[in-house]
Amino acid sequence: MSVAQEGTTVTMLAGGVGGAKLAQGFARLLPDPRLRVVVNTADDFQLYGLAISPDIDTVTYTLAGIANPAQGWGIAGDTRHTLDAIARLGGESWFLLGDQDFATHILRTHRLRQGEALSRITADFAAALGIGPSIMPMTDQPVATLVDTPKGRLGFQDYFVARRQTDDVLGVVFDGIEHAEPAPGVLGALTDADLIVIAPSNPIVSVGPILAVSGVRDALAEATGMRVAVSPIVGGKALKGPADRMLATLGHEVSALGVARIYAGLIDLLVIDSIDAALAPHVEALGMGVLVTGTVMGGPDDRERLASEVLEAGLRSREERA
Amino acid sequence: MSVAQEGTTVTMLAGGVGGAKLAQGFARLLPDPRLRVVVNTADDFQLYGLAISPDIDTVTYTLAGIANPAQGWGIAGDTRHTLDAIARLGGESWFLLGDQDFATHILRTHRLRQGEALSRITADFAAALGIGPSIMPMTDQPVATLVDTPKGRLGFQDYFVARRQTDDVLGVVFDGIEHAEPAPGVLGALTDADLIVIAPSNPIVSVGPILAVSGVRDALAEATGMRVAVSPIVGGKALKGPADRMLATLGHEVSALGVARIYAGLIDLLVIDSIDAALAPHVEALGMGVLVTGTVMGGPDDRERLASEVLEAGLRSREERA
Repeated sequence: MSVAQEGTTVTMLAGGVGGAKLAQGFARLLPDPRLRVVVNTADDFQLYGLAISPDIDTVTYTLAGIANPAQGWGIAGDTRHTLDAIARLGGESWFLLGDQDFATHILRTHRLRQGEALSRITADFAAALGIGPSIMPMTDQPVATLVDTPKGRLGFQDYFVARRQTDDVLGVVFDGIEHAEPAPGVLGALTDADLIVIAPSNPIVSVGPILAVSGVRDALAEATGMRVAVSPIVGGKALKGPADRMLATLGHEVSALGVARIYAGLIDLLVIDSIDAALAPHVEALGMGVLVTGTVMGGPDDRERLASEVLEAGLRSREERA
Repeated sequence: MSVAQEGTTVTMLAGGVGGAKLAQGFARLLPDPRLRVVVNTADDFQLYGLAISPDIDTVTYTLAGIANPAQGWGIAGDTRHTLDAIARLGGESWFLLGDQDFATHILRTHRLRQGEALSRITADFAAALGIGPSIMPMTDQPVATLVDTPKGRLGFQDYFVARRQTDDVLGVVFDGIEHAEPAPGVLGALTDADLIVIAPSNPIVSVGPILAVSGVRDALAEATGMRVAVSPIVGGKALKGPADRMLATLGHEVSALGVARIYAGLIDLLVIDSIDAALAPHVEALGMGVLVTGTVMGGPDDRERLASEVLEAGLRSREERA
C-alpha cells in the first residue's frame, strides 16, 4: 500500500460474490475500521418464514474467511442435512441452504421478529465472527427486487435460483424502495470516505438498489472522495450471474462501456479488464478516468492485488485532482 | 397377537421416550389405522422463535424408525452443525438440536405462523415419514408446563434441560390449560378404543397435562375400552427423567403403588415390573387389576413383547368383565 495513507478510508457498495471478493482484498490492505461495505438487501427474501439476506451473508462469510471458495456463497465445508430433512418432510428444497447457513437465518429471523434492526444484527454477527470492517445493509427496511419477464413479474430468487435466470428481464422493480431509509452509517460512510468503490457487482440488481435508497445517489454525487467502479462485464460477458443478459434485454450495451454509461456522472474512474483495453478511450470520453488491469479475481492474494491497484489508482487520481 | 382381533383399536396417552418406545411396540402388532397416540404438548416451547414439540417429535421419530436409539430422542446419526454455528454467532446452545431436527422445527413454525393447526402439521409430518398410526397432539392450543421450585417458577425446559432437574419441584402449573380444547380426534380415540394405554411416562408432567385437557379425563372415565397404565416407576426409581424425585417432592409415594394411587379410578389395570411384584396386592386393593412383567424396554423386539403382553392382558380383562 504505497499510496494509501495511515488514515485512508474506503467505502464499498457491493452485491454478493464479486463484491465480497474485492472487499476481502481491501480488508487485507486496510486497518479494520477503515473499510465499510454497504451491501444490497433487495435480494433478501423469506423461505420457510426465515429471513434470508444472500448478499450480506456472502460478504460476511467471505470477510470471516469461512466462505465456500468454490461457489463463492455459503460456508466452506457446510453440509445439507437440514435441507435434506426439510425435503423429507415435504418442504421446498430449491434454495441450497447449508446447515451452518441455517443458523444465520434462524438467529437473524428471531432477532428481526423481536424488533431489532437488520443493521444491528448484521454488525453483531460480523463481530461474533471476528470481522473488523463494517458491514452495513443498505437499509433496515424491507426492499424486494421484482423482475418483469415475458412470463410475468417474478420474485428475484424465483427468477435467479428457481428458474435459473432463463427468463428475459424486461424490467426491474425495487418494491418498497420508496420507504427505504439508508441504514445507520451508510450516508456518513459515503461522505467521509477517501475512496468509494462500486464493486464488480450487477449494476442493475445489486448496485442499482443501493443507489436507489433515499439519499444514496445524492451522497455519491456530492462525495469528496474518489469514486471508482470496477466493471463486472469482462470481454462482453458477466463474470458471474445474469448481468450480461440483463443488460442486453434492458437495452444497455453489454460491455465495460455499457457499464461506464450506467455509472456516468457518479464515478471518477472505471476499472476495466485488460481484455477490454480498446474500450478505454470511449470510457474516457464519458468524462471519467480508466484503469486497465486484470479484474478477474482468483484467491485472496489476487483480490488483494486488485484492491491495491484500485486503491492506488483512486488515491493517485485524487492527488492529481487536488 | 393371539388375543387381539382383526379390528382391535388401541389409543395411547404418551409423553416422550417411554411412550414412544411402547407405541413402537404396538405399531408392530397392529395394522396401521388401529393405533392412535395422543401426545403431551405441555413441554412445547420456543427457542430462537422456533416452535419445538419435544414429545411429538420423539414419538414421530420413533415410529418412523429414525430415532436415535441411544438417547431415545432426536434423530439417529444427526449432526449438530447448525447448533454449533448458532453458538459461533452468539446464540444459546443449551438445547441439543440436531440438523435434521431443525428441519422439523423450521417447517412446523412456518406452518403454525401461517395459521395451520399443530394436529394437521403433525399428521402431515407423520405421513411424509411413512408412519401409519395416528399421532395426535393432546390439543392445538398452546399449553406450557411451569414448575414451582425453591428458586421460583421455571419454564419446563429451563428446569428439565438447562438446569438438569436439580431443583425440587414443589408444584406444577399447566399454563393455558383452561383454554385447551382436545385436538380433533382425541376424544373419539378414547371413546372408540378397545384398549386405552397410559404409557410409562411421567404421571405429573407428561400424562398429567393430557388428562387436564378439557373433556379428556371424563372421556377416559366413561370409556368402554379397557384402560391400562404401565408404571414408569420401577424398583422405586424412574426409568428416565425426574419422575421419581418429582413424585417425592409433591408428596406421592415413589413406587408403582404411588402411580396406582394417582391413576386410581381412571384405569382398570396397572402393569408393574417383576421387581415390584410384592406391590401387586396393594395395587389390587385400590380396585384395579395388575399385570406383573418385565417393563424395562430395550430394542424394538422388547417393545413389541411388552405391547403384546399389555394388549393380551387388557383384552383378556375385558372378556372377563363382559
